[in-house]
Amino acid sequence: MLQPLNPRMAATFAPPVMEARRWLEGVAFPADRPLINVSQAAPVEPPPPALRQAIAEAALNEDAAHLYGPVLGMPELRAEVASQWSAAYGGEIAAGQVAITSGCNQAFCAVLATLAGEGDEVILPTPWYFNHKMWLDMSGVKTVPLACGDGLVPDPEAAAALITDRTRAIVLVSPNNPGGAEYPAEVIRAFHDLARARGIALIVDETYRDFDSRDGRPHDLFADPDWGQSFIHLYSFSKAYRLTGHRVGAIVASAARLAEVEKFLDTVAICPNQLGQRAALWGMRNLGQWLAGERAEILDRRAAMIEGFPRLDGWRLLGCGAYFAYAEHPFEIASDQVAQRLVREAGVLMLPGTMFQPATAAEGARQMRIAFANIDRAGIGQLFTRLEGLAI
Amino acid sequence: MLQPLNPRMAATFAPPVMEARRWLEGVAFPADRPLINVSQAAPVEPPPPALRQAIAEAALNEDAAHLYGPVLGMPELRAEVASQWSAAYGGEIAAGQVAITSGCNQAFCAVLATLAGEGDEVILPTPWYFNHKMWLDMSGVKTVPLACGDGLVPDPEAAAALITDRTRAIVLVSPNNPGGAEYPAEVIRAFHDLARARGIALIVDETYRDFDSRDGRPHDLFADPDWGQSFIHLYSFSKAYRLTGHRVGAIVASAARLAEVEKFLDTVAICPNQLGQRAALWGMRNLGQWLAGERAEILDRRAAMIEGFPRLDGWRLLGCGAYFAYAEHPFEIASDQVAQRLVREAGVLMLPGTMFQPATAAEGARQMRIAFANIDRAGIGQLFTRLEGLAI
Repeated sequence: MLQPLNPRMAATFAPPVMEARRWLEGVAFPADRPLINVSQAAPVEPPPPALRQAIAEAALNEDAAHLYGPVLGMPELRAEVASQWSAAYGGEIAAGQVAITSGCNQAFCAVLATLAGEGDEVILPTPWYFNHKMWLDMSGVKTVPLACGDGLVPDPEAAAALITDRTRAIVLVSPNNPGGAEYPAEVIRAFHDLARARGIALIVDETYRDFDSRDGRPHDLFADPDWGQSFIHLYSFSKAYRLTGHRVGAIVASAARLAEVEKFLDTVAICPNQLGQRAALWGMRNLGQWLAGERAEILDRRAAMIEGFPRLDGWRLLGCGAYFAYAEHPFEIASDQVAQRLVREAGVLMLPGTMFQPATAAEGARQMRIAFANIDRAGIGQLFTRLEGLAI
Repeated sequence: MLQPLNPRMAATFAPPVMEARRWLEGVAFPADRPLINVSQAAPVEPPPPALRQAIAEAALNEDAAHLYGPVLGMPELRAEVASQWSAAYGGEIAAGQVAITSGCNQAFCAVLATLAGEGDEVILPTPWYFNHKMWLDMSGVKTVPLACGDGLVPDPEAAAALITDRTRAIVLVSPNNPGGAEYPAEVIRAFHDLARARGIALIVDETYRDFDSRDGRPHDLFADPDWGQSFIHLYSFSKAYRLTGHRVGAIVASAARLAEVEKFLDTVAICPNQLGQRAALWGMRNLGQWLAGERAEILDRRAAMIEGFPRLDGWRLLGCGAYFAYAEHPFEIASDQVAQRLVREAGVLMLPGTMFQPATAAEGARQMRIAFANIDRAGIGQLFTRLEGLAI
């Protein structure tokens, strides 16, 4: 028996993606029917060659790319985010209101550590992003689930009824992981007004913003000169520039909040890695056109998912956007059993809804997340063919 | 006023290195008398050219160097650490007992999160490494200081008297930051026996092991087949291969402990950055001889510190090893005031003892840490000349 063991960590579930990888062990996938892996939201292709070249050149020619930098990140990258976001969101964001982190998961943990500790409460719409739940569990923060109805968009009025004197924040992810929903700007605005009125923080994780199907800004919160009072924005460079292995994300928040975030990041990271930051900066400065093409490709895959879904008897598509389709399966068994059956019988790996829902929520057992961004239109066609062939 | 604000974070002090950087603001350093910065334990030179080339080649040629990898790190790097450590420490360490982290600070946080939460206690010898204290503070863990006597080596019997039913771990850093002491193997053994007898963990942070002045293994804990029961080893690749900006560290612990660590790392990091891991692996495989030369250079600088120290009237050298000299200053004012005076009057930046001691410990005000590894023998000579010239 492991001891000593922090009971908070013991009560935190194991990483779902690693657990899902274990389901592959001992299963053979024939060469003419390879695994279709739609479990993780990760580009499987490397970054474009020019970006790889830029990283290599920084490694060779720039001494500072190997040494410690400021805790809150490279000044040039912070300034670039501030400038591009100010334009994109129609607001005023200063470089001092941007922090660079070692990925967006770390951005979330750093922000939450400044907001909530043992005994506090945070509201997460369900289905949730499992790493958010894990951080709250290991920190002793009570997660208050906010069940979403059809369409998977949370209701601000329902959230209002869940706020107590221990509530410290509401967390939204839009476009949503795992649900795929793109939250309407007015919904995000209503959540913001609620948070401000109740003196809590609204965190919006916009990791998938670059693949939103809508044109224009996804919300108007930054247009409020006082946005920093209650709004905190999170971002990831991983998806836009295929930099998952470099671990670079960002926080946009008030300078006062970032002074607290700096304590966490200094302690847990010292600084974000330097080559990853240079890659992100190069991407922001040079890959705007390329990213537009990436977005078009992801939106085409999304269209293929929506068009093809009716081929599947008994399945019901609940949400589709960003990298994800979220669906109800037609099987009599629970979703984690379905996931393992799909590996064996269809050569498909996807994550079960149980990983995105409280153990007490019956929905989890009926739902599956399909991270379709990893496969192209042809692959999506094969996915449907394999799922069609399964006896219900 | 910032709100909501986690009171644990509010009570955590700001990053000392960033605070010290602010002392430089508005101070001019003439070209013929530039700043001597002995504040941070960081190589100021980049890695050797062959390592930079290896990083560049991985960026250009290896797709996986840009994509997500396993939470606990690259299998090849884990195996390399296991193999080299088994030989170096005379014990049996399996690849499954090694985890790669985004720097050694993160290694500490990940391990502590599995051990101790709100209301628990951890024993830290003083002077301590400030980021250790910061993590405990923000986690709601009570730090129990263990004052070291002359020589700055902690006493296991004194530690025994501090253990309560809430104690979860004792943390040693050897060679020590900030004290410079190299703990005798029998002291580390005695701490281990104490920890095992009391059912708590012994963590030894060996970030500076490659610059230990002693030959042979620094302790024999790994020789015990059951070492994983109570011993946890931490390491950093930053100093050995000048990779501070890449953020790569390691944990060696039982596989059961690492299964808990994996939850934390998945949530906070997803995976260590891939290029940094490749750099560390290349360094381990190719830079053994080069590192021996680096060690000789650091040991020469250490000798220069010890030889030159008697030039300083009223100063007293308490410890000198690894990257650090730790000393008592002769001034009537507190060390944080001394540090700012040294910036203005001597063009020298070093950290005050107050950053490494509890606010209640009078020693902090009399002590200074000098991170001498950043300057060569000539620079050390200049440092002494500047300090000699100051009126006490």
